[in-house]
Amino acid sequence: MTALRSYVAGGWHTPGDEGVPVHDAVTGAEAARVSSAGIDLAAALAYGRERGAALRELTFHQRAALLTALGSHLREHREELYALSHRAGATLADARVDVDGGIGTLLAYASKGRRELPNATVHVEGPVEPLGRGGTFAGRHIATPLHGVAVQINAFNFPVWGPLEKLAPAFLAGMPSLVKPADQTAYLTARLVELIVASGILPEGAVQLVCGAPRDLLDHVAEQDVVAFTGSAATGRLLRAHPAIVERAVRFTAEADSLNASILAPDGDLDLYAKQLVTEMTVKAGQKCTAIRRALVPRDRLDEVAEAVRARLARVTVGDPAAEGVRMGPLVSLAQREEVRRAIKAIGGEPLFGDPDRVDVAGADAELGAFLSPVLLLGDPDRAEPHEVEAFGPVATLLPYDGLDQAVEYAARGRGSLVASVVTEDPQVAARVTVGLAPWHGRVLVLDRAGAAESTGHGSPMPGLVHGGPGRAGGGEELGGVRAVLHHMQRTAVQGSPDVLTAITGQWTAGARRGDDGVHPFRKSLAELRVGDAVTAGPRPVTRADIDHFAEFTGDTFYAHTDEEAAAANPLFGGIVAHGYLVVSWAAGLFVSPEPGPVLANYGLENLRFLTPVKAGDELTVTLTAKQISPRDGAPHGEVRWDTDVVNQRGESVAKYDVLTLVAKEAP
Amino acid sequence: MTALRSYVAGGWHTPGDEGVPVHDAVTGAEAARVSSAGIDLAAALAYGRERGAALRELTFHQRAALLTALGSHLREHREELYALSHRAGATLADARVDVDGGIGTLLAYASKGRRELPNATVHVEGPVEPLGRGGTFAGRHIATPLHGVAVQINAFNFPVWGPLEKLAPAFLAGMPSLVKPADQTAYLTARLVELIVASGILPEGAVQLVCGAPRDLLDHVAEQDVVAFTGSAATGRLLRAHPAIVERAVRFTAEADSLNASILAPDGDLDLYAKQLVTEMTVKAGQKCTAIRRALVPRDRLDEVAEAVRARLARVTVGDPAAEGVRMGPLVSLAQREEVRRAIKAIGGEPLFGDPDRVDVAGADAELGAFLSPVLLLGDPDRAEPHEVEAFGPVATLLPYDGLDQAVEYAARGRGSLVASVVTEDPQVAARVTVGLAPWHGRVLVLDRAGAAESTGHGSPMPGLVHGGPGRAGGGEELGGVRAVLHHMQRTAVQGSPDVLTAITGQWTAGARRGDDGVHPFRKSLAELRVGDAVTAGPRPVTRADIDHFAEFTGDTFYAHTDEEAAAANPLFGGIVAHGYLVVSWAAGLFVSPEPGPVLANYGLENLRFLTPVKAGDELTVTLTAKQISPRDGAPHGEVRWDTDVVNQRGESVAKYDVLTLVAKEAP
Repeated sequence: MTALRSYVAGGWHTPGDEGVPVHDAVTGAEAARVSSAGIDLAAALAYGRERGAALRELTFHQRAALLTALGSHLREHREELYALSHRAGATLADARVDVDGGIGTLLAYASKGRRELPNATVHVEGPVEPLGRGGTFAGRHIATPLHGVAVQINAFNFPVWGPLEKLAPAFLAGMPSLVKPADQTAYLTARLVELIVASGILPEGAVQLVCGAPRDLLDHVAEQDVVAFTGSAATGRLLRAHPAIVERAVRFTAEADSLNASILAPDGDLDLYAKQLVTEMTVKAGQKCTAIRRALVPRDRLDEVAEAVRARLARVTVGDPAAEGVRMGPLVSLAQREEVRRAIKAIGGEPLFGDPDRVDVAGADAELGAFLSPVLLLGDPDRAEPHEVEAFGPVATLLPYDGLDQAVEYAARGRGSLVASVVTEDPQVAARVTVGLAPWHGRVLVLDRAGAAESTGHGSPMPGLVHGGPGRAGGGEELGGVRAVLHHMQRTAVQGSPDVLTAITGQWTAGARRGDDGVHPFRKSLAELRVGDAVTAGPRPVTRADIDHFAEFTGDTFYAHTDEEAAAANPLFGGIVAHGYLVVSWAAGLFVSPEPGPVLANYGLENLRFLTPVKAGDELTVTLTAKQISPRDGAPHGEVRWDTDVVNQRGESVAKYDVLTLVAKEAP
Repeated sequence: MTALRSYVAGGWHTPGDEGVPVHDAVTGAEAARVSSAGIDLAAALAYGRERGAALRELTFHQRAALLTALGSHLREHREELYALSHRAGATLADARVDVDGGIGTLLAYASKGRRELPNATVHVEGPVEPLGRGGTFAGRHIATPLHGVAVQINAFNFPVWGPLEKLAPAFLAGMPSLVKPADQTAYLTARLVELIVASGILPEGAVQLVCGAPRDLLDHVAEQDVVAFTGSAATGRLLRAHPAIVERAVRFTAEADSLNASILAPDGDLDLYAKQLVTEMTVKAGQKCTAIRRALVPRDRLDEVAEAVRARLARVTVGDPAAEGVRMGPLVSLAQREEVRRAIKAIGGEPLFGDPDRVDVAGADAELGAFLSPVLLLGDPDRAEPHEVEAFGPVATLLPYDGLDQAVEYAARGRGSLVASVVTEDPQVAARVTVGLAPWHGRVLVLDRAGAAESTGHGSPMPGLVHGGPGRAGGGEELGGVRAVLHHMQRTAVQGSPDVLTAITGQWTAGARRGDDGVHPFRKSLAELRVGDAVTAGPRPVTRADIDHFAEFTGDTFYAHTDEEAAAANPLFGGIVAHGYLVVSWAAGLFVSPEPGPVLANYGLENLRFLTPVKAGDELTVTLTAKQISPRDGAPHGEVRWDTDVVNQRGESVAKYDVLTLVAKEAP
């Protein structure tokens, strides 16, 4: 068997030696060989950095569209990836978590890229920060892609999801990836990268693959690279202290296994709790960095919990993951099984279910595969081991607690976890426990009967929610929607005059020049409209009769609009005021250009503030300025955001807001 | 002279030995002694962690109010701090940057805390993330204070601003600080902490001070602590790789000196450029991590720039910083001067102004103080030294470039800087250069004539803008408004049913229970109102006559509301639709409770989206639900945000938005 190929510097590289064998988890037969011999890793990084320029020229929406296409392509090849997954010990359900979960994450990022990022190459973050009273100088934040490579060192347990959940935000940011899979399941990641490369969907250089030992890879990482690691806490510490990472302040994020806890509250639903616990113990044979290791239950419910979990575990068939009826496959390797057995001994609890040295196996040879029974222990929560020793397999320890404060305190003894869950029907209990757990956890899931049917589960990181935890969990953060995209970009505060900020951000900034070609901006298609194009209209006089009429017509007879005496007593108004809704309605009446044209609809309005009361006798003038123009890829229109400022006859702003419209790309 | 006292574990600690002398920068006399002998640093950290609980019980607004009080208190003691600053070599202008800048930062954080954070102990970040189609399970992010201590290791150059800019966001987050000043100016920070402690404004434990060597301090930092360092890149690297920081994944942020560049564009204003450069060279005698070290100028403007800078430097009087007319004081110490002299030699440029070994000194003895002339060098930008060797003093190197792309490339050779500036009158040039610089810089300032009068300057970090840069600059981030508060908090994704998310976040979440006590929520004061209290009103039938009338009354005769044929051709509407402004006006008419009561005003509206066209024949119903209740400290009222959902007779949402109101705390 020749070793797996790597994909570097634009070509497939066959290793220069025989490589190290990797074994089928079920049969023990050789499944692949891995080696990085002969790969010039410095050159691979340099190649990625150079190719990044092409990615950075695409807009976020263009990158998102490529991710969508890639997701669809990979979906067509799911069956093949499922089949390969069996060799790693994954049942079909396990494989779906990995394969469908990975593709789903890719598609979720594509969707977020379209909805939450602009059709541009620079991301603008947060509001304008005024820096002077005169408004001639201000600040804002932009995010631009780092000019390096995202080095992604993945764990063996999710050979498809792992690379995809890291690649998707990196690519969306405009940064190329170099994927380094774990040896045990590298053949799956290698096949995934083959599919990606063969599809030709992503620009060349967007993904490289290095199978086998990382060798001197990290010696060559530099200031603009990012290193994202998933795996054991021990390896994470080694990488974090790597001289190149330290010397060059390379961004480093780690996602490490942690001793995640699940707390049954005194009132919590037993079935929900036991079911979730058994699921977390057995999915991927418990080889998940998010699995439940510590089951914290009220002391007086210990027996019923043990009984319920034992009963469910007894129904779990262990065996060939491809065989009918098998619920749990083997661990990834015999070596992994030995580690788990050692960890079970080290935890030192009382066995409640399962023998680490013996298990009935369906459809496979128990001697050859890395099979292990699910093991439930009863531990002493006042000893350190249950909080510190991780058995990375189908193993959990029941730990009794007295009172919820103690449960929260025990959970914190894990010294930082990816996730904790709480099972309770009482939202107040949920809130109290969640806030107690939060400083030590990247994610907290509350399970109750109302949410159970749609619960995504203790162990499942979601694309829109952060994944990562403090301390032992690595202190990193992945996913969380656009947050993970920003992990691959440099946030830069920019300062300058309004015209400069407008040019940098592509968004009209208050105080900047306005267009003055005399054409009403509603008459301009997206192709013609420019940021800063504006119209000023008015004045419209305000009469008491108008206010009375509007109150009567709309039914909004709030006293400030109708009752002289009560309005005079209002601390803010001191007399009858016009309705805010009347002000914005009139403003629209002033700024609108009514004939059919490129403006299709006003689909929304944002950040409206009523700043000065409007009273009878006032006169209103409105200025509408094109603030941001966002053509939508693949549609005949796009969005235009208009800065809207309504002022009175004294020049005071009475209302400020953004009007959101859909505008056709071409004149009709 | 006895050594400076430290403030640890609730008391002032006098060192157990004589300490190390620190000298007056002007006279060379002993100014103070520093020592941390005898301090139990592990106990200090433990004390801070324990005292953090009291800080976490305060709301963000309560913490902000304490910062405001502290800022006012410190303001009254400015003169004393200015006077002490002279010993460190600071002129009055320099001292104001440090002292007033520090107090200003404190007050800016207080203001941001009130305006941008809730009057609560949990910060909710971002929108609800739906996790199921049925809406019974969703996610959101919260931020809670870390349960550790913010260890703040400061540089000598800003002994007041440095501690305050770190302390303010930490305190606002609810995290106690342990301040470790640099020896050279520790007497200033010690006096600052004395003022803080004596004021009694902050809860005991919120600030500790350790003067002298940090000894084993970092050995004791743990998972919930934060270490924030400002100083040299070399020390930053040592700290980053400290075993306890690595082992426990302690959050570490570094702000290191960097070789910041200022680029004069071919069209840029010479006076603005030269003035800013000379300011950056001479303020604090150039001892600023943000000072300009590399002055990149078009080759054909080199002579005029050199001339203009020389002329300005010639007018700088060096001498006793307390003396009249002196513009630049000495460096902080003789040792520092030796380092700068060595660095000047290492840069190896051609001297254009100043002799590193000789300077005229006004009002002081040139032999005793650490005086140094400003030094302008002409360097070769294709050699490494000008981009890598930092002279941390009044020193800059002129570097000629050919074309703006080359200027950007030269700037990047600094391998990561805190800040760069560009002087140009052309916003397009500004945008192109800024985006080129951005990946290597934490801040980019564009200077033009329009913004010059209000420019805050190349070297000044602003509270609302991030401060920090990649690579050599340390890879950290400070300030940036609320971002820095979040550096002291754990972000946690929370998942659960809508009732659970409502309880955790304090914000009503779609799908959660609504109050149903039969009382209109507009009749309830802030004291009576509960999140979830709601009113449903309607239906209101929509007629074509209404639409016609509204168009005529407001002047909004947009064709979609008035022209059958054109409206029918609109791809989104397919016929005459009611104005969005009419829909929201009617909704107000439906949900309002008109009589005088606790609701004072509708001051705004957010996130309005029109979701379904409304046509004649439709009937509208609105549900208004109290989403978030924010009592304002020190005012008789607070803000209530109302979830607003307008549906048609088919139950389809036609408009969703948040209504913002001011509501009295007590019934009138």
